[in-house]
Amino acid sequence: MTFANVGTIGAHPGKRDEIVAILTRLNPELMNAGCLLYEVGTNDDAPDTVFVMELWESADAHQASLQLTSVKDAIAEASPLLSGDMGGHQFTVAGSPLTNPPN
Amino acid sequence: MTFANVGTIGAHPGKRDEIVAILTRLNPELMNAGCLLYEVGTNDDAPDTVFVMELWESADAHQASLQLTSVKDAIAEASPLLSGDMGGHQFTVAGSPLTNPPN
Repeated sequence: MTFANVGTIGAHPGKRDEIVAILTRLNPELMNAGCLLYEVGTNDDAPDTVFVMELWESADAHQASLQLTSVKDAIAEASPLLSGDMGGHQFTVAGSPLTNPPN
Repeated sequence: MTFANVGTIGAHPGKRDEIVAILTRLNPELMNAGCLLYEVGTNDDAPDTVFVMELWESADAHQASLQLTSVKDAIAEASPLLSGDMGGHQFTVAGSPLTNPPN
């Protein structure tokens, strides 16, 4: 079942866009790991927050991706930029009004 | 610029799946209103919550969609099922590691 992860990532002041640059770098490993969608963005009303929205083929695919070298490297690279404030939700996709039945 | 909306919708106990059924009903109007993605789901760790994840061609397209008859009808139909607990975030998409540069 398609697995969704949405999250907020707190940045040290002024470091938000550096995190965005790391997270949006083209990553072919993700494509091969069952990642269906991975959008990264910002909202100037929350200037020290990076927003992510992800879809994966399964919760297992998402979990396994955290062990990919490219993902570990990105986490290590971003780590000094992070405030430690993290939020988010995970859910199993039930369907979509665009593509019902579920894709 | 692509606009993202992620949200949590609180349900009265036992009514979650009825809300999911309303929100996942095929809606051609959304397709024509600039909606790029609209995923609805659940997480049994939060049994009275419906999760949504949306992408729109623009913030204006999202805002305008709230005036569509089909959307107003769905909101009216779901309204008695809602607890009133609503949460979420909105952001502008900066890019994706799957499709950099931004799609």
